[in-house]
Amino acid sequence: MKIAILGSGAMGMLFGGYLSRQNEVVLIDTDRTKVDKINRDGIRIREPEGAVTTACPKAAMPGGGPGEADLVLVFVKAMDTRNALACNRNLIGPRTFVLTLQNGSGHDEVLKEFVPAERIVIGTTRHNSSIIEAGFVRHGGGGTTFIGSKDCSPAALERIRDAFARSGLEIRIAEDIRRKIWEKLFVNASASALTAIFQTNLGFLLRSRPAWDLTEQLIREAVAAANGEGLGFEEEIVIGDVRSLLENAGSGYTSIYADIRDGRKTEVDAISGAVVAAGKRNKVPTPGHEFVVAFIHAMEDKRSC
Amino acid sequence: MKIAILGSGAMGMLFGGYLSRQNEVVLIDTDRTKVDKINRDGIRIREPEGAVTTACPKAAMPGGGPGEADLVLVFVKAMDTRNALACNRNLIGPRTFVLTLQNGSGHDEVLKEFVPAERIVIGTTRHNSSIIEAGFVRHGGGGTTFIGSKDCSPAALERIRDAFARSGLEIRIAEDIRRKIWEKLFVNASASALTAIFQTNLGFLLRSRPAWDLTEQLIREAVAAANGEGLGFEEEIVIGDVRSLLENAGSGYTSIYADIRDGRKTEVDAISGAVVAAGKRNKVPTPGHEFVVAFIHAMEDKRSC
Repeated sequence: MKIAILGSGAMGMLFGGYLSRQNEVVLIDTDRTKVDKINRDGIRIREPEGAVTTACPKAAMPGGGPGEADLVLVFVKAMDTRNALACNRNLIGPRTFVLTLQNGSGHDEVLKEFVPAERIVIGTTRHNSSIIEAGFVRHGGGGTTFIGSKDCSPAALERIRDAFARSGLEIRIAEDIRRKIWEKLFVNASASALTAIFQTNLGFLLRSRPAWDLTEQLIREAVAAANGEGLGFEEEIVIGDVRSLLENAGSGYTSIYADIRDGRKTEVDAISGAVVAAGKRNKVPTPGHEFVVAFIHAMEDKRSC
Repeated sequence: MKIAILGSGAMGMLFGGYLSRQNEVVLIDTDRTKVDKINRDGIRIREPEGAVTTACPKAAMPGGGPGEADLVLVFVKAMDTRNALACNRNLIGPRTFVLTLQNGSGHDEVLKEFVPAERIVIGTTRHNSSIIEAGFVRHGGGGTTFIGSKDCSPAALERIRDAFARSGLEIRIAEDIRRKIWEKLFVNASASALTAIFQTNLGFLLRSRPAWDLTEQLIREAVAAANGEGLGFEEEIVIGDVRSLLENAGSGYTSIYADIRDGRKTEVDAISGAVVAAGKRNKVPTPGHEFVVAFIHAMEDKRSC
């Protein structure tokens, strides 16, 4: 399969490295140094158990990709999606599928500006990855990647699934892909967002009672918003799932925490903002998430204001 | 007048210093070192224009005060009020008035546990003061102190007023003392509280658009809560007042900012919490202030959790 990956951040490099084992992969990035480094030295991946592997996908600047791809995998930050697609229209032909595994929800709305719904696939992955240095990522842990679409043909989804599976990536087609995306959103829009505001690790949210109360409130609002979309989640089960995750990953720091720490823009609009949007669509109040969006945007301004 | 001041923090020392010029003043504090220092060296006050004056009130540990006072002036942190009064009952006799000039609102509810309503006076002051070192404060700026009570006799209020005025403190009896207290609360529950969360100076709230949007939202909620109490504020006027204050004091840092920076408990329950309480009494929603209370309590936990 000819696969173009938009964005060679930590996740783009991880998936690019894996997928290049059995597919023709090109990573597209705006950072010339990164592109040159990948073309020269490939991508190194440190696996959770310590082994380091090297993979050799190609890399290119925007617009300099390989022409029409079978699959465009979108891994840029949420706020860059529109721009990344606009600058790489040459990748998208009449048979190209576009898959987003980005954090948050609502990306398909942007993708629809560039490709018809029957060639848009959404998904979510449990893999995580962080950058050790240019061209070198730490694979923090694996897990299943879920993809799905109510508009795509089953055969198209199966072709994508098979390409991933051949490359060693555990992947499943989910009938209820929106549920899978919301399950991840529940964590990101509650716990992850709060670690950005508090500038702490995940475990703090269990150690501080008022912090946990806020986490719970954000989960309750998000579940109500998701159920407004007809998804039928059970509040107490979701709260228990987030609690378990915090118990197991207490020493972990989130990417949105690091974005605020380092003065970068965050993906809060695609995360907490997606909960607010679902709330508005369904007349479910989400005051907590509205505040989180505003708080995090204000914190993004701290360096520059 | 025989005046006992509970709490020899920056404000207690400022008022203690001034009032001791014409009254018998004892500062009560739990910190033995502070008490000894004041008894030995007095209090030095650096005035805004640079002059330094020394005043010599007495100081004592809790329970060691001078017996029944004419006036007990409460200047401990909001969360210490109940404890401070319980440990200093010996100061309160059948003719003792108790005056709170503490930040926030709702302190009179605690005072009522110790003294009847007709001897409770509430107020607010525009003075500000910060500690330079033990026994030495910087008088940041003056302004009118307002006192009032719907239960006290006018004569009692006038005696307090006169004692303050003789000591060089500008003071007025306000018919609408709750309005004066809310005017200060509008600033503290919006701008000051946000500087604690963002860990910035006041000017940031004007420089960052999302930060200002939050400030405005908190003001709007607080005005609605105050108006639920029958106070009849005009939203746009209050917003304009807060904006002017930020324009003039942009480089200033708030005490609640410093509390969070230094890992201390804050007075958020008497500030944002007072807005939430007024909202609840009057069925006015204050979701922003509820979040601010929870956020700040969580941030108080950062050092210990």
